[in-house]
Amino acid sequence: MKILTKAECAAFLKAHDRFTILSHTRPDGDTIGSTAALCLGLRQLGKTAHVLENREVSPRFSWLHQGLTKQAAQPGDTIVCADVASPGMLPKDFAHLLGGIHLRIDHHGSATSFTEEELVEPDSASCAELVWDVLKLLGVGMDQPIAEAVYVGISTDTGCFRFANTTAHTFATAAQCAQAGAKMYELNQELFETNTLGRLKIQGWIVDHMRMLRGGQLAMVAIPRTVEQEIGVTEDDMDNISSFPRTVAGVKMAATLRQTGDGEVKLSVRAIPGYDATVITARFGGGGHKGAAGATLKMDLETAAKAVEEAMLAM
Amino acid sequence: MKILTKAECAAFLKAHDRFTILSHTRPDGDTIGSTAALCLGLRQLGKTAHVLENREVSPRFSWLHQGLTKQAAQPGDTIVCADVASPGMLPKDFAHLLGGIHLRIDHHGSATSFTEEELVEPDSASCAELVWDVLKLLGVGMDQPIAEAVYVGISTDTGCFRFANTTAHTFATAAQCAQAGAKMYELNQELFETNTLGRLKIQGWIVDHMRMLRGGQLAMVAIPRTVEQEIGVTEDDMDNISSFPRTVAGVKMAATLRQTGDGEVKLSVRAIPGYDATVITARFGGGGHKGAAGATLKMDLETAAKAVEEAMLAM
Repeated sequence: MKILTKAECAAFLKAHDRFTILSHTRPDGDTIGSTAALCLGLRQLGKTAHVLENREVSPRFSWLHQGLTKQAAQPGDTIVCADVASPGMLPKDFAHLLGGIHLRIDHHGSATSFTEEELVEPDSASCAELVWDVLKLLGVGMDQPIAEAVYVGISTDTGCFRFANTTAHTFATAAQCAQAGAKMYELNQELFETNTLGRLKIQGWIVDHMRMLRGGQLAMVAIPRTVEQEIGVTEDDMDNISSFPRTVAGVKMAATLRQTGDGEVKLSVRAIPGYDATVITARFGGGGHKGAAGATLKMDLETAAKAVEEAMLAM
Repeated sequence: MKILTKAECAAFLKAHDRFTILSHTRPDGDTIGSTAALCLGLRQLGKTAHVLENREVSPRFSWLHQGLTKQAAQPGDTIVCADVASPGMLPKDFAHLLGGIHLRIDHHGSATSFTEEELVEPDSASCAELVWDVLKLLGVGMDQPIAEAVYVGISTDTGCFRFANTTAHTFATAAQCAQAGAKMYELNQELFETNTLGRLKIQGWIVDHMRMLRGGQLAMVAIPRTVEQEIGVTEDDMDNISSFPRTVAGVKMAATLRQTGDGEVKLSVRAIPGYDATVITARFGGGGHKGAAGATLKMDLETAAKAVEEAMLAM
């Protein structure tokens, strides 16, 4: 495996042709945006380039791949993956290509190298801004489709510029996307200002059922499986739900407990800077980061809630 | 009244000293951030500069003015206001200074000129980024306090880069703020990832009581005054609440009705691009923009809701 600089990565792309580009399983905005931008950029240079159809992509992002897909890689193709952190992140459909991937462009600090060559920059907020840097080195001009692909990657991976990974480089790249005519407002409305009814209902339930401890500095909520079933939430509706109780004004740390189907309780703790969520999860054999940590508790919901409350009050 | 370019505005600031800087009434992040940045920049140039204490400022933004305020303007001071669109936007405490304001820096496309000289750029998303452009022309370096003042102005006036006013220039300025070490993540948590319990409760009530029309493309909710009183929401909690029902997935246009104390109903309509909110409000003598419009209905809530529903279904 050879580690590439951006310039070397650009040289690799320049020296090759007939590209097949792979996105990751459970595809998000960054892998779809990155692969779309790369494909569009390579085509602008006169190369033959396709993204391999990722059947898991949701309508939220599938429009970015429109007109770019093909069904299968051919012998002799140059195979590139973008935003794929490990072999396990390849969609099952693409698994047969493992071992034959020529280049990986990624921003995950993962130790797993699984391609012939790789450009990996863990400080990059999104893979899309990294892809754009390489395309720019190749003399690609940022047209509106490339700008929108890059913008979707950047904005979704930074929570629309709110997460801690956002850098000066992220903003500078977004400035180029704006300059190139990306319809950012329309994209923002769709990507960030839209909630499913299921999501809003479970949020309403949480507001009505959360317990405030220590004068409102700590919050916790235990969600019975029956409640999720009654509301009819999907896993998409519940995505990152544990970050919600923390958003209540004054709350420094919040614990969310969800009952799983198999008699376990999933605990997620979120904390603002200056507080350490792992203090709670470590008590239950879990781990994570100061801002976000988790654990699995093999007990019923009521017992788990009591144990978590005790752990929080013991801090 | 003399209209200035950025360079002329910089020359004005260079030629004067003893600055008293005014923010607007019901101060938001942009007026407080703009005045703080201007004051800090002028001090960096060796000038005497203060912001006039604005007693209306909330704890959310007051830290930006810490160490910069004074209680009263002195004779001979150079008086500058930032983000003040009209004389009516001056706090009552500052009203006696009207007629004696030397310079206005603003980004509102208002026709009201009320100062001796003015730099007004309506295309600028925030006043803060305009202030920074002028300071940069004066050779001011962006240190962390200036970066955070500018960032608060930019981010609050663009809904953290989500609103349609966000430009390439906005992002480029944010990139400079990041480079200068602004603690953007902490600021974002505080400014955008925090909800009052009152806000969350009224949102929960809306989710439970909103009516979906036309297969979920239209939504409407009528909020009785008694509900607001029972939940105990403040006007801050209700700020821009009418944008909330529109965020439900699939909703193209949403109408929110609020009962006021004096037997009237305030109607607010929000629409996504491609739909026109004024079609509804015009029927009730109101107006606004395609994306956001309003009207006041002199009727009881039930009658108003029925009339609005008819208007929406007649579209």
